[in-house]
Amino acid sequence: MSEAAVKAGRRGRGGGGAARRAERTAVSIETAKYISRNIPNYEVLDDAALDLIEINAETILAEIGVNFVDNPEALERWKAAGAEIDGERVRIPRGLARKLCSTAPATYTQHARNPERSVVVGGKNLVLAPVYGPPFVRDAEGGRRYATMADFEKFVKLGYMSKWLHHSGGTVCEPTDVAVNKRHLDMLLTHMIYSDKPFMGSVTEPSRAQDSIEMCEILFGKDFVRDNTVMTSLININSPLTFDSIMMGALEVFAKNNQASIISPFIVGGAMAPVTIAGTLTQVYAEVLAGIAYAQIIRPGAPVVFGTFVTSIDMNSGAPTFGTPEASHITYGAGQLARRLGVPYRSAGSFCGSKLPDAQAAYETANSLQMGLLSGVNFMLHACGWLEGGLVASFEKFVMDADQLGTLHQFAKGVDLSENGQAMDAIEEVGPGGHYLGCAHTQANFKSAFWRSDVFDYKPFETWDEEGARDTQMLATARVARMLDTYQQPPLDPEIEARLRAYVADKKASMPDSFT
Amino acid sequence: MSEAAVKAGRRGRGGGGAARRAERTAVSIETAKYISRNIPNYEVLDDAALDLIEINAETILAEIGVNFVDNPEALERWKAAGAEIDGERVRIPRGLARKLCSTAPATYTQHARNPERSVVVGGKNLVLAPVYGPPFVRDAEGGRRYATMADFEKFVKLGYMSKWLHHSGGTVCEPTDVAVNKRHLDMLLTHMIYSDKPFMGSVTEPSRAQDSIEMCEILFGKDFVRDNTVMTSLININSPLTFDSIMMGALEVFAKNNQASIISPFIVGGAMAPVTIAGTLTQVYAEVLAGIAYAQIIRPGAPVVFGTFVTSIDMNSGAPTFGTPEASHITYGAGQLARRLGVPYRSAGSFCGSKLPDAQAAYETANSLQMGLLSGVNFMLHACGWLEGGLVASFEKFVMDADQLGTLHQFAKGVDLSENGQAMDAIEEVGPGGHYLGCAHTQANFKSAFWRSDVFDYKPFETWDEEGARDTQMLATARVARMLDTYQQPPLDPEIEARLRAYVADKKASMPDSFT
Repeated sequence: MSEAAVKAGRRGRGGGGAARRAERTAVSIETAKYISRNIPNYEVLDDAALDLIEINAETILAEIGVNFVDNPEALERWKAAGAEIDGERVRIPRGLARKLCSTAPATYTQHARNPERSVVVGGKNLVLAPVYGPPFVRDAEGGRRYATMADFEKFVKLGYMSKWLHHSGGTVCEPTDVAVNKRHLDMLLTHMIYSDKPFMGSVTEPSRAQDSIEMCEILFGKDFVRDNTVMTSLININSPLTFDSIMMGALEVFAKNNQASIISPFIVGGAMAPVTIAGTLTQVYAEVLAGIAYAQIIRPGAPVVFGTFVTSIDMNSGAPTFGTPEASHITYGAGQLARRLGVPYRSAGSFCGSKLPDAQAAYETANSLQMGLLSGVNFMLHACGWLEGGLVASFEKFVMDADQLGTLHQFAKGVDLSENGQAMDAIEEVGPGGHYLGCAHTQANFKSAFWRSDVFDYKPFETWDEEGARDTQMLATARVARMLDTYQQPPLDPEIEARLRAYVADKKASMPDSFT
Repeated sequence: MSEAAVKAGRRGRGGGGAARRAERTAVSIETAKYISRNIPNYEVLDDAALDLIEINAETILAEIGVNFVDNPEALERWKAAGAEIDGERVRIPRGLARKLCSTAPATYTQHARNPERSVVVGGKNLVLAPVYGPPFVRDAEGGRRYATMADFEKFVKLGYMSKWLHHSGGTVCEPTDVAVNKRHLDMLLTHMIYSDKPFMGSVTEPSRAQDSIEMCEILFGKDFVRDNTVMTSLININSPLTFDSIMMGALEVFAKNNQASIISPFIVGGAMAPVTIAGTLTQVYAEVLAGIAYAQIIRPGAPVVFGTFVTSIDMNSGAPTFGTPEASHITYGAGQLARRLGVPYRSAGSFCGSKLPDAQAAYETANSLQMGLLSGVNFMLHACGWLEGGLVASFEKFVMDADQLGTLHQFAKGVDLSENGQAMDAIEEVGPGGHYLGCAHTQANFKSAFWRSDVFDYKPFETWDEEGARDTQMLATARVARMLDTYQQPPLDPEIEARLRAYVADKKASMPDSFT
């Protein structure tokens, strides 16, 4: 247990009436441990291909360079590190970026306030976090509408109750009813109070990154935050090859404070990167090398993640497309590059372009989730709830996807080759023409043998028909309602909660609303 | 071009008014070439695991044995080949089955009457065939109902028009309005007349297998059928470890005539095989070894396919479950065993348990299709149209799945590492902060760069909403109607068609209807 968590727990147990009530009524919410793969990764590129991409990426950095926009201090830092500066253009001599990246840790622990929920990002692990960023929400009853703070709170509660989700995420939807300059405070407070899973910090302004740190200091204790990583935040690169001052400012705050940043090119193929797989991989690698190198210039050893967000494009309509083979290839390839660089890898998710949680959504999402597992992703943002190209967070799809994440856990266990796994006694016992349902081996193993959905319908046709012939969306609507009805808040020291609420109230009172 | 096809084509062109009309009105139906993988397979087992499974499988064959039921000739053949016979039990000494299997070809060509549609089964190839066996059909308008010959004909037409489908399949649904002892004749006739893609023979009685051969002799010419493989048929094993006389009788007919047989254990895990992955793989391997060895006893060199049909089971309801991680593991592992044995591999498909073509159906199906591609499957039966655990052939799901098969084609192409693929000129041209939509490289490549669905919705939200906010099923309903409306029969020599029709009429007149 972390020091802060021990403290929080002790305070909770020793605290006043509210704490005791919280403890008494809290149900034990089962959360699976983050996935630790006992399976190989799928490697689509051979070493020669990886060499080629690396050489080309370093050619980009050395000859074309990257832009650090509106950020003279970054240019100074790059100059001091050995790069060649030309206006806002930074050209990085061959080998320098990789050398700078070498101080980045291969794995790091992100602590949760409940230490049982802490996650280790990197290596063979896979940590699953929900959708991030949609301005709209959708459910079957209310249709598509702008997201509010009430929606945000519901998603955090659903995430807390989702067994296969290890992480509470960040902007699970954009609460558009709160001022832009204040909503990060409400979002962080909600993650901290309504869940005990790890979460993400704010990146929309460097000052909001700083607020995130300060709220974590209240939640975990100042000493604990100084010595430990308690946030993983999403730093997007403006592809192609551009690092803006807002995102870099947030990165600077997080890296200085030893908090983790996902350095993530955001690419719609054919628009922000070439239409070819190898070309996109090359640009992605160049961008991530530059971004991680910069984080290491800020603070050698700061935890970082090699991010890749990539979609293809429908050249008829210009719409981004999801679950496509090109995105899969890039995700597999980028995983190999991340392992080559020796840092954790973020990619994949419940991606789909569909407007509804229908078959299109599920085909696209399943394609993305499966390749996410096999490509060696260590941190999967958007693992559930994504709809309509990320414009919409869907309540039904959130629980449908979150259920599917169970298949990743089960597959990652690999193949049990023990004597029990080999089952030779059972095969002998049953023999030709027999059946296994009643045999001793089946009785001993059936409970954990097969993954089972908690959402899908497995009933006989007649029963299903009598019960209303419900499709997956209707089953999911019922599940969302049931989960929210039975949600119970995880215990938190009332004093800490009060201090967090006061911090947020003070901050919000200190500035006028801004919606830009 | 095959001799028969040349002949058929020549006759078609030179024939009477019907042939000329057929030619004049025929539209060119585009069918993709069968997939030839330029990607690695995913291998979940290491060599030690494969060794262990092989040793155990041979232990099963040598010590437990398999039953050949009601088939004294098979027992005689096994005895002559060196097996130990005990009643109907055949015990196969260690090494014997694998030695017998060594005459099976690694690849074979299945000829279609249109030689452009012939397929090579095995190696790095993947041939896609539609759903097989459902007694029911479903569409949005008519709901779930018993399948008829009219439905069967529609599915054959849809299969013919589906670009990513290489094979017309066999019993795409069970035409329950035709007597059991006669429906194979109508089904074969339909495949032969309404499609020019390769197809499967009948296996429900040895005599029906013989009818299949005789109809092929009319379609392709007797000499051609003697020298070439023109059917791939599905021989199920009664797992565990039982080979019944009907399926073996059909196998004997096909093997004798050098026609291909898929030797396929049919396994609901926990019922027909142990609940563990390794145990199931061991039993599957033992069963396939015995079945392929038997085919090679009948005729050394007869083309065979290592089949694996496997589902997990929901231990609450007893229902088979699909798209699950356990089935994926078994499919990956069996692919490795098939390659070890050096024969083509059949597995995977558009498997799902859902009653509707909804999100459940699509998650389960996408999981199955993706792992089918990566597991090295060479012949994928059920690649589209499967619903409700195989009880139902769905018109909408047929076209939804058939569209998704395009993603397998595109992914299998692998990563283009040519200069054009590397796109370094484009990256230099666009530079930091630019965009790729207008650059020369994008213009030159965009048409083929990204896979695009012909079913899914990629429109802006507002357009989609105005057009009725249709879900995938509704889009698919429209596509089914459009395809059937524009279907045109591929040309066939009228004389051949007349002889086929006469053969079927005579056969049907020669026996009373039987519905058992």
